[in-house]
Amino acid sequence: MNGAESLARTLVASGVDTCFTNPGTSEMHFVAALDRVPEIRCVLALFEGVVTGAADGYGRMAEKPAATLLHLAPGLGNGLANLHNASRARSPIVNVVGDHATYHKQYDAPLNADIEGVARPYSKWLRTSPSAKAVAADGAEAVAAAKKAPGQIATLILPADTAWNEGTGPAAPVAVPPPALPPADAIERAARILRSGKPAAVVLAGAALRRKGLELAGRIAAATGAQLLAPYSIGRIERGAGLVPVERIPYPVDQALERLKHLAHVILVGATPPVAFFAYPEKPSVVTPPGCEVSVLARPEEDLVGALDALAGALDARRAEPKLQPRETTALPAGAVSFAGIGGVVAALLPENGIVVDESITSGRALLAMTKATPPHDWLANPGGSIGMALPLAVGAATACPERKVLALEGDGSGMYTLQALWTMARENLKVTSVVFANRTYNILKGELANVGAGNPGRRALDMLEIGRPDLDWVSLARGMGVPAARAETLEDLARLVSAGLASGGPSLVELPL
Amino acid sequence: MNGAESLARTLVASGVDTCFTNPGTSEMHFVAALDRVPEIRCVLALFEGVVTGAADGYGRMAEKPAATLLHLAPGLGNGLANLHNASRARSPIVNVVGDHATYHKQYDAPLNADIEGVARPYSKWLRTSPSAKAVAADGAEAVAAAKKAPGQIATLILPADTAWNEGTGPAAPVAVPPPALPPADAIERAARILRSGKPAAVVLAGAALRRKGLELAGRIAAATGAQLLAPYSIGRIERGAGLVPVERIPYPVDQALERLKHLAHVILVGATPPVAFFAYPEKPSVVTPPGCEVSVLARPEEDLVGALDALAGALDARRAEPKLQPRETTALPAGAVSFAGIGGVVAALLPENGIVVDESITSGRALLAMTKATPPHDWLANPGGSIGMALPLAVGAATACPERKVLALEGDGSGMYTLQALWTMARENLKVTSVVFANRTYNILKGELANVGAGNPGRRALDMLEIGRPDLDWVSLARGMGVPAARAETLEDLARLVSAGLASGGPSLVELPL
Repeated sequence: MNGAESLARTLVASGVDTCFTNPGTSEMHFVAALDRVPEIRCVLALFEGVVTGAADGYGRMAEKPAATLLHLAPGLGNGLANLHNASRARSPIVNVVGDHATYHKQYDAPLNADIEGVARPYSKWLRTSPSAKAVAADGAEAVAAAKKAPGQIATLILPADTAWNEGTGPAAPVAVPPPALPPADAIERAARILRSGKPAAVVLAGAALRRKGLELAGRIAAATGAQLLAPYSIGRIERGAGLVPVERIPYPVDQALERLKHLAHVILVGATPPVAFFAYPEKPSVVTPPGCEVSVLARPEEDLVGALDALAGALDARRAEPKLQPRETTALPAGAVSFAGIGGVVAALLPENGIVVDESITSGRALLAMTKATPPHDWLANPGGSIGMALPLAVGAATACPERKVLALEGDGSGMYTLQALWTMARENLKVTSVVFANRTYNILKGELANVGAGNPGRRALDMLEIGRPDLDWVSLARGMGVPAARAETLEDLARLVSAGLASGGPSLVELPL
Repeated sequence: MNGAESLARTLVASGVDTCFTNPGTSEMHFVAALDRVPEIRCVLALFEGVVTGAADGYGRMAEKPAATLLHLAPGLGNGLANLHNASRARSPIVNVVGDHATYHKQYDAPLNADIEGVARPYSKWLRTSPSAKAVAADGAEAVAAAKKAPGQIATLILPADTAWNEGTGPAAPVAVPPPALPPADAIERAARILRSGKPAAVVLAGAALRRKGLELAGRIAAATGAQLLAPYSIGRIERGAGLVPVERIPYPVDQALERLKHLAHVILVGATPPVAFFAYPEKPSVVTPPGCEVSVLARPEEDLVGALDALAGALDARRAEPKLQPRETTALPAGAVSFAGIGGVVAALLPENGIVVDESITSGRALLAMTKATPPHDWLANPGGSIGMALPLAVGAATACPERKVLALEGDGSGMYTLQALWTMARENLKVTSVVFANRTYNILKGELANVGAGNPGRRALDMLEIGRPDLDWVSLARGMGVPAARAETLEDLARLVSAGLASGGPSLVELPL
């Protein structure tokens, strides 16, 4: 059994059964091994940003790593932007990157480059396998590294001869230690703060934003009066009727400052201290008020749910009744398109147990508030701010959860970075309904230009922010990749098309000009 | 004058007047400065791989750097694949990459990352500007670094506050020393070899593949019987009737070995020693025969044309009559589509002084031979092997040479990595006629799978090499980005559509199913 097949079987033995890929010559032995290892589902993408974004979406939903298969430094480079988001989502991913044969590197052939250098900024674990005999063991270690709480990116570089030479057969899985509880004094300090009665917020991230963590946080809030917040930039949250609601800290600095100004304490549960997304002249970087004490209940790599449970115990709050979000139904709005109307349509149609992937940016700011009382669902947001995430993420989420419906809410500017994801949706017949909000501008940047004090833009500056010359025709783009698509001119159109898309059992796209 | 405007004016003063960009918040002050610095032409792209590919095309044709303007590590990451090719083309490029404000970095906001780490593998010059007072001087140094012979990638990271704080005004250009002649003994050795009468080839690259270098090489060949070759992977060559023809070393290893097997000497002029593009089991990495001596007349950074002139002088060959390519006209072929037919159509229609950008991969292997006797033109190939080059490169070439017609020959698989380039062609009304060869497969990989000895692929492996499920509709994709497009079913269709496209004065696309 060659190295490639040994690696493929190792991945399977370690629980990795899905591989998103855009392969090249140096990966051909791995591709050939797929014929002999049917336990791996291999999903092809036409661009590597789709590969890594899909692996991120898969990791967030499956809570275990997918593999990627990428070609040399340029292939990995194309995947970096969505690895950025994945690293901020703390998604588990095993990148397998092919390289030239070990003995061929010295000749610096045209495709040769410093793959480790390209990988390092986003890889918490990084290794170039030295030989076919080492590949399987390296693969098992890569999977274990990816699974290490709360999840991280592991990159295994695979020189071509380590794939084609005789290997060892599959390696046994490497044990992954479960996340540890935070030290007792972290729990005691948080309990003391919350018992003090001073205004406090608990900022939740990671696993704390899932049903069990939310429930515990809700009990703590009920017992102590603490507020429950989430960072603006999160990877995944379970929300909707019957769950404990959590408010995201606003993106605009002034709104964030206003929202947090009364707080004496912030307690972090897997979150990092609240800071501005960008710096702006004359505005602070830290958005908690001066004098507000920021404490850590649990670091991201610790057992967040266990920490909340221990805190609830210390506060005698395990039986406190959490305030759950009640279900509220809304009528389908009609008429001309508006942000509130879009929110109303999404709220009315969001399916129970659905998955929303949200990269609607400025078009979607009303969405979270308007959808809070819908049937329970998962909401995947952009935790790293690298745009071009939603369509690939939807590919991965739909692959991880084939029985669930995915609604991808995408800006036209963001969507263009990784539109190739639509082709993979068509090829795999994924249950993804995409709505593209076509405002034909990098609208967020118009606000940012003012926020950074760059003055009133003239025509030449505005030209760099407007993408409506020529207009993009998303119906044409989607059909060009095999995805049925239509344009909505009214809220009725939007409701009809989204409804049909969700019912279709396959991919579809709705363009909504704004 | 703030740092951003100081930098923009410095770029202009140093001769950089074109900027390809996809900006974000951290670049807003640079964008705002464009209103006040009209000497810079700023070209927007919807994806950063288009930005860097365009800068590569611009650099190859203009022989001076364009700037890029990119947003943080993810924006640079998206640009790496085409920076790979640019580094192999030795194109001059000045990357300007925005970063968080210097004082904001410490908070590790969601978009924070190791930009220098991402930049390092492809940047020969790399600096993070420490303050607004330093930005202009850093910019002048970056341009000088990019211009250093034969051309290289310089990356200047621009923290947001260095853009918005008060700067120095423009910095004076930094002098760039001209490339030096190789040492006299390199010239004497080459002359001795060529006088020996042993079978020898001169392998030309870089500036040696332009008219003046070719003419000198042609005189040397005429005087000594040496063969003239070029590497398979080249950035730009001037060719056609009236020029000295040069043969590219074939891509397939067996063909390369066969082509070079008689040689006792290879003399490199800006080229690197001939090696296989990839390693294959049981095949050599070095494609010159055992015992063949590889000598360097001039290294890439030296004065290649000067070296050829000195060598011609040493050989008393300055008046030898070079063998020029005679003009041959061919009739327009007709009927069913074939590789030879495609070559015939391109040969018949290739305009004088046109620019061909070739990433047709397997579909285009007949093209070079069939177009050798056409009117003189520039041929831009893929020097680094990172696919997704041709459409962005055409954007840059057409921007650099607005009076010339560009013919982009693109594979469907390659084209999908950077199809967003079509939108920039439409927006800037660039004279680019794109032909997409739609064989609906990564056809090169089918050959490579066999070459690396990975056996007969089964259905699951083949699935990773075939992109025809669903078929891509390039007519739809192009129209979706504002580029007129049509499908050719016959060679007559192809000729009519290419002819109309070249005559149109703007962009167009022809899809050719194979």
